[in-house]
Formats: sequence, C-alpha cells, structure tokens
Amino acid sequence: MNYKMIGRLLSYVILIEAGFMLFPLSVSIIDGTAKATLAFGATIAGMVALGLVILLLCRKASIRFYESDGFVCVGISWVILSMLGCIPFVICGDIPNYIDALFEMVSGFTTTGASIVPNIEMCTRATILWRSVSNWLGGMGVLVFMLAILPTGSGGFTMHLMRAESPGPSVGKLAPRMRQTALILYAIYLGITILNIIALLISGLSFFDAACAAMSTAGTGGFGAYANSFAGFSPATQIITTIFMLLYGVNFSVYYLLLLGKISNVLRDEELRLYLAVFAVGSGAIIWNLLRVSYYPTVGETIRHATFQVSSIMTTTGFATTDFDLWPTFSKGVLLILMLLGACAGSTGGGMKMSRLLIYAKTLVRNIRHALHPNRVSVVRINKAPVSETVINLSNAYLVAYVALHLISFLLISWDGFSVEANISAVVSLSNNIGPGFGEVGPTLNYAGYSFFSKIIFCIDMLAGRLEIFPILVLFSKHTWNRKA
Amino acid sequence: MNYKMIGRLLSYVILIEAGFMLFPLSVSIIDGTAKATLAFGATIAGMVALGLVILLLCRKASIRFYESDGFVCVGISWVILSMLGCIPFVICGDIPNYIDALFEMVSGFTTTGASIVPNIEMCTRATILWRSVSNWLGGMGVLVFMLAILPTGSGGFTMHLMRAESPGPSVGKLAPRMRQTALILYAIYLGITILNIIALLISGLSFFDAACAAMSTAGTGGFGAYANSFAGFSPATQIITTIFMLLYGVNFSVYYLLLLGKISNVLRDEELRLYLAVFAVGSGAIIWNLLRVSYYPTVGETIRHATFQVSSIMTTTGFATTDFDLWPTFSKGVLLILMLLGACAGSTGGGMKMSRLLIYAKTLVRNIRHALHPNRVSVVRINKAPVSETVINLSNAYLVAYVALHLISFLLISWDGFSVEANISAVVSLSNNIGPGFGEVGPTLNYAGYSFFSKIIFCIDMLAGRLEIFPILVLFSKHTWNRKA
Repeated sequence: MNYKMIGRLLSYVILIEAGFMLFPLSVSIIDGTAKATLAFGATIAGMVALGLVILLLCRKASIRFYESDGFVCVGISWVILSMLGCIPFVICGDIPNYIDALFEMVSGFTTTGASIVPNIEMCTRATILWRSVSNWLGGMGVLVFMLAILPTGSGGFTMHLMRAESPGPSVGKLAPRMRQTALILYAIYLGITILNIIALLISGLSFFDAACAAMSTAGTGGFGAYANSFAGFSPATQIITTIFMLLYGVNFSVYYLLLLGKISNVLRDEELRLYLAVFAVGSGAIIWNLLRVSYYPTVGETIRHATFQVSSIMTTTGFATTDFDLWPTFSKGVLLILMLLGACAGSTGGGMKMSRLLIYAKTLVRNIRHALHPNRVSVVRINKAPVSETVINLSNAYLVAYVALHLISFLLISWDGFSVEANISAVVSLSNNIGPGFGEVGPTLNYAGYSFFSKIIFCIDMLAGRLEIFPILVLFSKHTWNRKA
Repeated sequence: MNYKMIGRLLSYVILIEAGFMLFPLSVSIIDGTAKATLAFGATIAGMVALGLVILLLCRKASIRFYESDGFVCVGISWVILSMLGCIPFVICGDIPNYIDALFEMVSGFTTTGASIVPNIEMCTRATILWRSVSNWLGGMGVLVFMLAILPTGSGGFTMHLMRAESPGPSVGKLAPRMRQTALILYAIYLGITILNIIALLISGLSFFDAACAAMSTAGTGGFGAYANSFAGFSPATQIITTIFMLLYGVNFSVYYLLLLGKISNVLRDEELRLYLAVFAVGSGAIIWNLLRVSYYPTVGETIRHATFQVSSIMTTTGFATTDFDLWPTFSKGVLLILMLLGACAGSTGGGMKMSRLLIYAKTLVRNIRHALHPNRVSVVRINKAPVSETVINLSNAYLVAYVALHLISFLLISWDGFSVEANISAVVSLSNNIGPGFGEVGPTLNYAGYSFFSKIIFCIDMLAGRLEIFPILVLFSKHTWNRKA
C-alpha cells in the first residue's frame, strides 16, 4: 500500500474542505452569529494545520499507485471528511452531540439528506449553508474536484481515484486525460447549478434560499433550509425543482455530448431512455392511483405532487412537497421500488443506477439463453458497444454486496424496536442516499429517534451507498491491511 | 421444441397425480363424506381420461430432448398439476371459488403452505389429506417421482428434467444414471417420512394427524390439519417436528453419503456447516431478544418456540407454535432474513439456498480481489471442488431474477391497499415457499383478503420460487414460443 501518496492526497482533500468552509464562515460573519464564526473559524484553522502536517509527513511519496490504493484512498478520505466536517455543528451548538453531527455530515457528503435535526429553522444560517455545500461537493465528489484543480499529477492515480469515487459500473472518459474529464464534469456541474439558482430567483426565492436549494438539488442531496422541505414553496419553485432534479440525475457525459452537438448519440442513449421511461411510468402509476382515490382536489395538483416526488425519489434527492407517507400503499410501493433503482451512472444521483439495471436485464437474458442453448455464445451490449465480462462480474459483485448491505443493516437496526416498515424504508432510503422513508422516518419526521449504534450503521450505509460499496468494503477487509509496502 | 415428448411426459404426470388422489378418495369413502367421494372420484376419472388421450396423441415422440424442452416441460407440468389438482376442492365445496382453490393447490405443490381457508377444521378430511399429500409430492418433485418409477427412458431427458425441477444451483448425481439417483432420493425421502410418522405417533398424535403432519413437514410445506398450526400440539410433538424440519432442509445427498458410511465427507460439507451455523445464530439471536423482554414465562419455553420458528422459517416449512407476528421487531427481522436465505440445495426446502449463499460470498470476494489486483486469477471452490463459471453465471442470473420477482410482485399486489409490512412479507414468504408473513398475513391469519389478481400473482410467485424461476420465466418468454419444431 502506498501510504505516503494516500496521505498526500488526503491532505489535499482536507485543505479543499477547509476552503469550502469559508462559505459558511462568511455567512456567519455577515449574520453576526459569533458562535458559528468561532466554530467554523476554529475548525478551518485546525484543518489547515492538520492538512499541512500530513503533507509535510508524506512529502516523498512513490508514484506507484494501484487500484487497491485508489479504493483505500477514497474510502478513508470520505470518512475523514465527514469526521472533520461535522465539528462546527458541535462547537456552535446546533447539533451538540458528536454522533448526531457525524450522521448529519455523512448524510450531507453522501448526498442523502436525511437529518436528525428536529427543527432546521432553529439552526444558524452558517449551518444551513454548510449542509447544502456538503451536498453540492459530495454530489460530484471531492476527489474528482481535487483532480480537476490539481496540476496534472504524475502516475496513474487519477484513473483509479475517478473509478473509485464516481458512481456507475464503469467510468466514461470524456477527454484523453482524466484531469480534463474531471474539469469538464465540474464545469458542467457548476453551469447547471448557476442556471438553477437563476431559475429559483426568478420563481421568487431569496438569494440565500435559492443558493441552498440549488446546491442541495445539484448534489441530489435533499438538505433544505426548512423543516417542511419544499411544501412551503410556490408551485413554480416546485416545478422548476422537479425539472432540475431530473437534469442532475442524467449522466453528465450526455451534456458533454450535447455541447459537442452530438444530439443523435444522446437520443439513442439506452440509459437515458430507460431513465425517462421509468420516470414516466412511475409518475403515471402514482397519478393514476392518487386520482382513483381523489387524494388531491385537482388533477393539476396531483400531477405536480406526483412528478415532484417521483423525480425527487428516483434521483435520490429526497425533497418533498407533500407527506407521501400518507399516500395509498400502492403509491408508496412505487416510491420504494424507485428508491432502489436510482438515477443514471455518472450523475450526482445514487441508488443502483439505470446502467446497472440494463446490464442485469441483458445479462439475465444472455445467461438464460445460454442455459437453454449451451452452444450459443452472445455478448452483452449497451449502446451497441460490448460490455466487458469484468464489468459484468463487478456489477454482479455489487448486486450481492448491495443486497447483503440492505439485509444486514436491516437486521442490526431492528434492535431499536421501530416498525418493520420504518426499518426497511430507512435502510433502503439511506443506503441509496435518498433521505426520507416511511412510518417513523417519513418525510415530515427525522432519524433522531434511532440509537447511536443504529446511527453508526446508517453512516456506514450512506457511505457504502455513495461510494458504491467497494471502497468501504475494502476498508473493512483484513486483506487490505495485512500486506505492507 | 419437442412437443410430443413434452405431451407424453405430461400425460404420465397427470396419471401419477390421479394415482396419488386415491389416498384422499379412500379417506372420503371411509369417512362417508359423499360429496368429497364424488369430487375426488370424478376428478380422478377425468384426469385418467385426459392423460390417456394426451398419451395417445403423443405416441410417436422424437427422442431429441434439449435443455429448453426440460424447462418448458417442468413449467407446464406444474401449472397443469395445480389447475387439475384443485378441482376436487371446488366440487366438494370446501373451497367454492376456483381461483382460491388454485391458490391453495399451488401453495400445496410448491410446498408453500399458505392458505386462503379461514377455518381448516371445517373442511373434509379428504381435503386436509390431499393438501398434505400435495406438500409431500411437491417437496421432492413430481417429475423426479416419474423418473424414479418409469422404466429407463431413452434419450437425455432425465438429466434435463432433474436439473429443471430440483432445487439448487447444480444437481448432484448420486448414481451413474439419473433414474437411480431419483430412486435413491425418493427411497430416502420415504424412509425419513415413515420415521417421522412413527415419532409423531409415539408423541401422542392420531395416525391421521401424524400422517398429515409428517407429509407436510417432509415437503417443508406447512399445510396443517388445524387452524392454529402446531400451537395446540404437545411440546414433545413440537420438538420432534423442529428436528424433522431441520432434517428435511438438509441436502439429501448427505443422507446417501451417511448410508455409504462416508461420515468425514459429511462433516466437511461446507453447505451443511453453514446451514447449521445459520440455525444456531438465528435461534440464538431470537432467544436473546425474547429473554431480554421476558416474552415467555420460562427459558425452556423461549428456547422451544424460538428453535421451532427458526427451523420452520429457514427450512421454509411455515408451521407455527406461537403468533410470531407479536414478537419484538428484531426477532421478526431475523425471521424475515431467514425467509430469504432458505434451506440447502437438494433438500425439499425453498428459498435462495445455502449453497447459493456460499457461491455469492465466495464470488464476491473473488471479484473484489480481481478488481484490486487485476492480474491475479482465482477459482471459486466449494468443498474444495471448483465451481464452474456457468454455475456462477446462472447463480447471478438467478439473483437478478429473484430480486426482480420480489420487487415487481410487491408493486403489483400493493394495489390492494394492505400495509407495506404485510405486502413485503407476503411476497417474501410466498416467493420463498414458506407460508405465513407478518401483519395482515401473520401466522394466525390467511391470504383470503387479497384480490383475485393478487392471488394469481402469488401463484406465479410460488411456482417461480419452487422451480427457481427459470422454468416459469421460460414459459413467459416469447423466445420459447417463436421457434417451431
């Protein structure tokens, strides 16, 4: 293991996080909230010192950087980022307990958006902003950000880091060099976020609300400035957010293709088609169900709430305009399935990802055909390109680990005595980085009631969900720590 | 497709089912329940006629019999068996509605044991016996029975049929010829069932009760002669059944090895070890949980109920000695997980099977290692023998189809408006051929409240669960029906 290189990258990541903390620090100074200023100021100072010490200790790093180093580096970075990032919450008193604060921070960086804060309006604006910033940064990834701004590094570590941090079964190269790819991704990301802020400003939000909402939407995070999420906003704000959530759930390479004018490639993209089809079918099913029981007074309102919730859940954002825990069971069932499926690979959304769904479906058909006609050999193709057996094997490993993660977590948190419905939906919601669940963890409630033990499990779930399990699994594997050098 | 050969095998299966119906017919004659005598007599006559007509039409069958023919044959046979076998229930009036009767019969043959009969004590003894006979026959498989009693057939159809009907990722050959294997399996099965009847007689049951209970236990079916399942029986009867359920959940090749004196092979069997470990850990966890809340007055009672329920659920039998729906959430969580895992391959139990768990766990480790160190190649081994890539691919395809089956079924039955807990547990319980679930489908309740549409979905789930999805999937595939000849 290349500990020194991992240390060096870790120090960069800590310094970057400290840099992003300047945003909430500024807000706290403007607002004159002294405790928040102290909290963020002291944390920034401490982090800069820590980052520089690690950097000094790890000056002379070998450039040999393997796949396994990439996984370990990403796994450790995310854990450290969360453990440091939550310190201001504790110091300023908005979330006095460290485990609660850690849950909140992990929820932020993993773009889950689940909260243990009972009434967010009571918190300082610095805390509210930092939660949304964590959503934005976590959405595209901190290490990807580092790659984008760092001078071109030597060695192959860029590829391994991108692979370990980016969501989806395989990483698409947009440019010959990974660093350029990271830059392009962040440029597109920033561009859409700015458009989103402008649209929200036009719809009548204040700049602070618009910025927070846009950043949380961009990361498909779901942290909001209000306890009732989006229920208090105007229909225009809700509809704008429905559209932007959908946009952030699309593979960002699609936008790059659009910028290059390759529109026909975009239209033929199988993952995009499946994504839009799932959105249409999911919304349609819920609209049908809600209309049958006349849940809302008008058809327009039904469509608005249904599409918002479907967009929010399938992109794993987790905003709500209505208490969908009160919806009929069928609509809740649709949402529960959508939680598992998730958004597109290469987007900021979580879940299993549409491209994996495609791989699973096509591999299933291929394998059954092979069982029926052992002599025929066929290749799995997506967008006409063959999918390598390595990607198929890793997707299968992911599915096994994904199912196991859900089952084991469900079992461990059951000890707290919440209802089976709440426990299942909590695990599904957190492991897929959505946020709200059903029952005791419904959209109007929060996760404060679970024990500290369960909250630690939830933190692991959220991290495993965001990093697609392997980097976290590698951290827990004795195989990783046995070998020196 | 070799339609004529499929037809011929189907006719044998129908005649065999008619033969087994002689048992309930005899009971109805002894009891003097005229309507039941008419019901079973008329159905037997009709089935014999139908069987002979099909046999006549399919006299000249080609001996070319492919894998795909095996899947189709098994799939069709099980559907037809259930559609014919439930007719007596309707005629004798015990279950007047045909869809309800079909659900009951599919539940019997697939050894699920879920019922729509509100009060089984009101039914004729012929109906009660036929339900248990269907459990017994479905446990080891009707086509395997056919292979065991048929004069050695020509062609390779025996292997394809065994493979399609027997549970587990691969079929173990106990003897050079598949027909001998089928005979050995049924001989062992019959032997243990007889031991079971004797043990139950000693514990104080009447012969009829002992025979019904033993047959339902043997198939890990779970149909009982009493509405309160095993709650009314003595502790001795309950403990005997705990042990026998566990015995039927073991791969039957283990018993063959024991008969051959190869005890060291048995002790080293990884699947058997995992199975016993899961039983011990599952029971231990529930005992711990129940003792903490002092659920039962004594430790002995706690152990008895916990081990019975764990044995019943993990072998997918579905008997109950207590209303475990009232247990604390953690214990219910343990049961829900056990429902998914299931028993051993090559047993009469359902679920995912221990051997698949082993394959998944070992493949996961292999694939992650491969991702970290792309140049190392390693083989997955169980009991020191390498597992072929075809078996691994099929196990992965099974997992994908298994997850999809659960999700889609859950969605479709949600329309009926039952609680999320009931819907999830119903799908898990039926797709894994267990029987009872939680909430509205708890162990003291039944599935009568679901709509006919949901009951059809449940029938497909149960059949897909028992036949491990592929034969049913093949029936629904247009690929199967497109090709002629």
